[in-house]
Amino acid sequence: MDREHESDERYLEIYEEKEKEKAAEIMREPLLALAVGVGGGGMNDDSRSMVNNTTSQLAIVGAKVSAIQSLDYEIVENDLFKQDWRSRTRVEIYQYVVLKWTLALLIGLFTAFVAFFNNLGVENIAGFKLLLTTNLMLKHKYYEAFGVFVGSNLILAIGAGVLCAYIAPAAAGSGIPEVKAFLNGIDAHSILAPSTLFVKIFGSILGVAAGFVVGKEGPMVHTGACIANLLGQGGSRKYKLTWKWLRYFKNDRDRRDLITCGAAAGVAGAFRAPVGGVLFALEEAASWWRSALLWRTFFTTAVLAMVLRALIQFCEGGKCGLFGKGGLIMFDVNSAKPAYSIPDLLVVIFLGVIGGLLGSLYNYLVDKVLHTYSIINERGRIFKVVLVMIISVMTSCIRFALPMLSKCLPCPVATVDDDKCSAGAGAGLSLHYKDFRCPPNHYNDLASLLFTTNDNAIRNLFIADNTFQLSTLLVFFVAIYLVGVITYGIAIPSGLFIPVILAGASYGRLAASLLGPFTVLDAGLFGLLGAASFLGGTMRMTVSLCVILLELTNDLLMLPLLMLVLLISKTVADCFNKGVYDQIMHMKGMPYLEAHAQPYMRHLVASDVVSAPLFTFSGIEKVGKIMHVLKMTRHHGFPVIDEPPFSDAPELCGLVLRSHLLVLLKHSKGFFTREGVKSGSTIMARFKAHDFAKAGLGRGVKLEELDISEEEMEMYVDLHPITNTSPYTVVETMSLAKAAVLFRELGLRHLLIVPKTNGRPPIVGILTRHDFMPEHVLGLFPHANSHNK
Amino acid sequence: MDREHESDERYLEIYEEKEKEKAAEIMREPLLALAVGVGGGGMNDDSRSMVNNTTSQLAIVGAKVSAIQSLDYEIVENDLFKQDWRSRTRVEIYQYVVLKWTLALLIGLFTAFVAFFNNLGVENIAGFKLLLTTNLMLKHKYYEAFGVFVGSNLILAIGAGVLCAYIAPAAAGSGIPEVKAFLNGIDAHSILAPSTLFVKIFGSILGVAAGFVVGKEGPMVHTGACIANLLGQGGSRKYKLTWKWLRYFKNDRDRRDLITCGAAAGVAGAFRAPVGGVLFALEEAASWWRSALLWRTFFTTAVLAMVLRALIQFCEGGKCGLFGKGGLIMFDVNSAKPAYSIPDLLVVIFLGVIGGLLGSLYNYLVDKVLHTYSIINERGRIFKVVLVMIISVMTSCIRFALPMLSKCLPCPVATVDDDKCSAGAGAGLSLHYKDFRCPPNHYNDLASLLFTTNDNAIRNLFIADNTFQLSTLLVFFVAIYLVGVITYGIAIPSGLFIPVILAGASYGRLAASLLGPFTVLDAGLFGLLGAASFLGGTMRMTVSLCVILLELTNDLLMLPLLMLVLLISKTVADCFNKGVYDQIMHMKGMPYLEAHAQPYMRHLVASDVVSAPLFTFSGIEKVGKIMHVLKMTRHHGFPVIDEPPFSDAPELCGLVLRSHLLVLLKHSKGFFTREGVKSGSTIMARFKAHDFAKAGLGRGVKLEELDISEEEMEMYVDLHPITNTSPYTVVETMSLAKAAVLFRELGLRHLLIVPKTNGRPPIVGILTRHDFMPEHVLGLFPHANSHNK
Repeated sequence: MDREHESDERYLEIYEEKEKEKAAEIMREPLLALAVGVGGGGMNDDSRSMVNNTTSQLAIVGAKVSAIQSLDYEIVENDLFKQDWRSRTRVEIYQYVVLKWTLALLIGLFTAFVAFFNNLGVENIAGFKLLLTTNLMLKHKYYEAFGVFVGSNLILAIGAGVLCAYIAPAAAGSGIPEVKAFLNGIDAHSILAPSTLFVKIFGSILGVAAGFVVGKEGPMVHTGACIANLLGQGGSRKYKLTWKWLRYFKNDRDRRDLITCGAAAGVAGAFRAPVGGVLFALEEAASWWRSALLWRTFFTTAVLAMVLRALIQFCEGGKCGLFGKGGLIMFDVNSAKPAYSIPDLLVVIFLGVIGGLLGSLYNYLVDKVLHTYSIINERGRIFKVVLVMIISVMTSCIRFALPMLSKCLPCPVATVDDDKCSAGAGAGLSLHYKDFRCPPNHYNDLASLLFTTNDNAIRNLFIADNTFQLSTLLVFFVAIYLVGVITYGIAIPSGLFIPVILAGASYGRLAASLLGPFTVLDAGLFGLLGAASFLGGTMRMTVSLCVILLELTNDLLMLPLLMLVLLISKTVADCFNKGVYDQIMHMKGMPYLEAHAQPYMRHLVASDVVSAPLFTFSGIEKVGKIMHVLKMTRHHGFPVIDEPPFSDAPELCGLVLRSHLLVLLKHSKGFFTREGVKSGSTIMARFKAHDFAKAGLGRGVKLEELDISEEEMEMYVDLHPITNTSPYTVVETMSLAKAAVLFRELGLRHLLIVPKTNGRPPIVGILTRHDFMPEHVLGLFPHANSHNK
Repeated sequence: MDREHESDERYLEIYEEKEKEKAAEIMREPLLALAVGVGGGGMNDDSRSMVNNTTSQLAIVGAKVSAIQSLDYEIVENDLFKQDWRSRTRVEIYQYVVLKWTLALLIGLFTAFVAFFNNLGVENIAGFKLLLTTNLMLKHKYYEAFGVFVGSNLILAIGAGVLCAYIAPAAAGSGIPEVKAFLNGIDAHSILAPSTLFVKIFGSILGVAAGFVVGKEGPMVHTGACIANLLGQGGSRKYKLTWKWLRYFKNDRDRRDLITCGAAAGVAGAFRAPVGGVLFALEEAASWWRSALLWRTFFTTAVLAMVLRALIQFCEGGKCGLFGKGGLIMFDVNSAKPAYSIPDLLVVIFLGVIGGLLGSLYNYLVDKVLHTYSIINERGRIFKVVLVMIISVMTSCIRFALPMLSKCLPCPVATVDDDKCSAGAGAGLSLHYKDFRCPPNHYNDLASLLFTTNDNAIRNLFIADNTFQLSTLLVFFVAIYLVGVITYGIAIPSGLFIPVILAGASYGRLAASLLGPFTVLDAGLFGLLGAASFLGGTMRMTVSLCVILLELTNDLLMLPLLMLVLLISKTVADCFNKGVYDQIMHMKGMPYLEAHAQPYMRHLVASDVVSAPLFTFSGIEKVGKIMHVLKMTRHHGFPVIDEPPFSDAPELCGLVLRSHLLVLLKHSKGFFTREGVKSGSTIMARFKAHDFAKAGLGRGVKLEELDISEEEMEMYVDLHPITNTSPYTVVETMSLAKAAVLFRELGLRHLLIVPKTNGRPPIVGILTRHDFMPEHVLGLFPHANSHNK
């Protein structure tokens, strides 16, 4: 897991090397003769060009056996499942439903606590740090102040970096791409593990408190998903947290639902935007959605909103240290009712176009920086920490030094009297105007943006009455834009929302200064629209961003303008590159299945892309052969063929999963039969369906655990009870595009290909996620894409 | 179409009669020998009970051939399509994308105009009517006033009723069930026709202005969908509105997308709730959803919001007659920031539970009333109009007489000075307190709810400062609840949102009067929560209702309470019956495909439910046989089998659609071949893919239009170019539940069943929407459902 940020190419390289060995090994085995030869396209009599798949066999087999596994959302309808379902009483069904809702409630509850704890931590640590520095500056000890500021930031940064580098490398970064990939059916190692959860929570607090230009939103989404996963897994065996009664949820389908709830709760908690959270989960995170899920995520975020509200009420009396109202961001913008007309709309369109351009440039730069960092991060953990330290010092210097270079402004007359702008008097913490080396009744406007928490800076930018010099806004915009770009990718949990909102809001205020004469919209609204345009330009969501921003600013009357600017910036940015999360996912080599098939897939048929040797079992199979095949391959599904004398001719019985075979072999010891006879009823009596429930990643029965004697190897076992008799199938001449749609829509892991003509083996191949990846298909048919785009 | 509201049973009866004849005819035909015999379950060797399907053949064939057709969302990948796709230039693809967005824009634009026009009409007509009546009452001419009120209402009601009964019966009712059914793939006759659109717009204006307890929301959704359909159809040939360049959209998939946009625009326009509209389309209307659609619906509603805003701005100067701010409802509730605690939450929970109970009772009563009305409406058009008249007079009497019986209250001191409560002075139109036969400085609180437009009544209920007597609220609640129930189902366009909100808000205020001492929440908020609980109890949406209510009231701080009350009322109501729209859809006999398969389907396999005789064609088929089969059956898809000498053994070539066959036969005249030879290239040269594009309902080539000579009947035609070579298939032993999931998720119309064993015909049956209907399955296997609920 040290190669968290490594680039695509490197990733493939490693696997290719590994798998060339493995494939060579397979080739040497005489058992290969068992494999039904699968040639692509060879048996089609139409005019398509014949392509011989076997040349690139090695690379393909390699890529099939990566550490990244596919999730399986198909219902395994084997005899055990059917028996279990038949015997399930009404009480048990009721229990399941109640449990599912209870889990949704718990996810909301725990995520609310984490969100609150996160804010409490950040506000207190960052507040204390700023208080200390400000006090030193009031005594004109500027060098000491600088030292304390940089030093405390550095210590916090090292804390975050060490946690990430040494305990859970998967916790670095935003986490939204990982959650999105998981919900698409990709299970990479430990992305939702308890250690990741731990580091994500504390690393995020330390990182944000350290003054990095990072947010807590992405990490909150990841945290919510981890909590959901932990609950859905029935706890963690490693940390002795397990609950027996959660066995019903030991399948990928229920986990997917829970993790969707967790992702929604994360966004809802970070922004206090319950509806926005639901929409985020729907629009960005989830790949499969159904109406019932909308309701359940909504319930989760409703619980979260209530709990969060109660906790904030509890803290209102000042019981929570420096934690104030500002913690859980809710920017009451409430500008004057905007009465805009055509020229204003033109200004907004202009804002959206430029915002889209800058947003897609941001994505481009983040991508480049990530590639660079991945080279550094690969060298070892200590390099990761050093990188974190360098960025921390750099950020601290910018935050401290730039305001020093800026000139002081006199306070606006209206604020001279109250303490908002006065230089003396206590902590300059929550002030809008920063007393930064300025004479009395003067303030430093750049300091009020840089020398504060990110949340406060955003609030200052959104308030219409605040005034900033053009130069201040320009310096701040450039600084935040660039620092934001170079910060993402270091080994700390780092959300992208806040840097983008900061840069976007300052861009919006800049635009307000320049375009002010042409419009009646106020500067605060410009800040909001600028932030929206940047968000649209980088993240490419529309409805969810719109609702999140509305919930943040509590002013519904801005809705049409926000919609307009988001649509324009997304459209513009889409011309250049993909959304930032898709980009990161792609960079990490996650085999994400797009909702739509690629156009060139229409010219191919399903059997064209099948390449790996096919291993099949008989309905009643020799234990030795099963063991051999399991050792030889790392496939996860094997077709089961009924052969004479158990049927008239070879015919497809179904599909059996590796994990089920392992469980069967482990617990059937002594019950194997000497002759090949049907012994299904014995097995049915010994096992219950939930014995075969899917354990969490890395927790199932291992091949090495099996202890089967030489004698047993020669015996037989009946696979019928654990064979899924209803696997999804396509005919070999089905177009690849339509097979891809089937695979994606139903969330499959294996798709069987049946022959078109009689007299051949009943199965000609298996399609898996890998076979639909453009890299694989275009590797086999380099010219498929030559025409039409 | 006179049987708009007829009951299920009657519906089936008619079809059974019709189809018994048809089936008998088929049976007499020697051609039946062509049909491959399909027996259910007979060839399975497992222990399931053998069931003979043939007994209920007649009823099934009958039900298969109803006027309701299935839509087909599958891409027909035949040679012509592939050729077309290959030859499509970049410019054409670009043109398609631009057109699609332009259509989304136009849908938003037109729906905005209709929404505005609707409000303009209602406000002016109803305003004039109320003005006239009030003026007469100020002169103490109460009988004349009563006459004018009842008379004008009656005239408007007759107008709406005549439009509905004589021009477009499909326009009666809400329209949301129809749109929902359409988006599920059910195409009933003329539900989205131009005449329906016309009646829906004007009927809705007349109906709402006539003082019925109906809303304009459902009709607006239907209107939006009709507009989208009209644009997507490439206009209407009947009314000479066609656009050639819209041919790209002549398929069910693109139409579905457009109509989803239309439904979203409808809600958005009715409530001025653009985000709520998108969510409504997602949560309630659409059966299939994808991320791109979210974006497009969002664009549509954004356009609508901007246009609507501009139109309202235009009217602000009083240029639009009596149209005021009140037209497009936006209730600025803005109660004091609710600082609620545990007891308040308990009160809200209580409110939700009772609201859920009353909501489901509402559904139950509506269902009963609809059954009763359907008997009356069936008798003829004139009966429909008479029913409308009776309800109109009844409603008018209640609106006028009940306030007369109520006693006058003194005006609150604060309002004595301004004209809000004064009895004299001009139109009592927009006043909050109605001068209803009261002495000066007194007002009639029941009149301020009943003797006004529905929108104003809701506003009055939501304003916290208004006070109502307990008796007033009780009388109003009971009256509106009952009148609402008996109004739905008469032959006018009638939305359900407004009656439910009215009843719910008065219920909430009633609860506020009773529970006031236990809570700090104000009465206006109670009204809102009561409305939410009723909506949740009848319509069973959550997220979209929540957002719509937020957008209506413009106060985000109520969000958690709203979420709570919606979740509770939905949960409670779900224990008793289905949502009101599902109920109406079921009553109308729409074969709606649920997202989940029924549990008992797990015990059946795909081939169990296949029943209709199967007709197949050869790849190169005799024209006479095609004509014969098309005449004999009303099936819409036929498997094509390649037979020797064109292949070694009979093998599946694909699926050909009836509509494509008709086009082929019509335009191939003179190009048939005497011998059975491959003539695909000739056909490819003569046709373009869009010649086969799906025309709107009732506009394709008819069988009667074909004019084929005796000689041609003996000739052959090559079906390969129009055969979809990639139909979706399942193996005959696939469990019915999983086949149903496949069918539903991919939006299919035909699903082919292939045999499991060799040596049999390559196709054993076709599954269609009908085969998955619980009525059909339970008809074949009455005991399937006996266990597990």
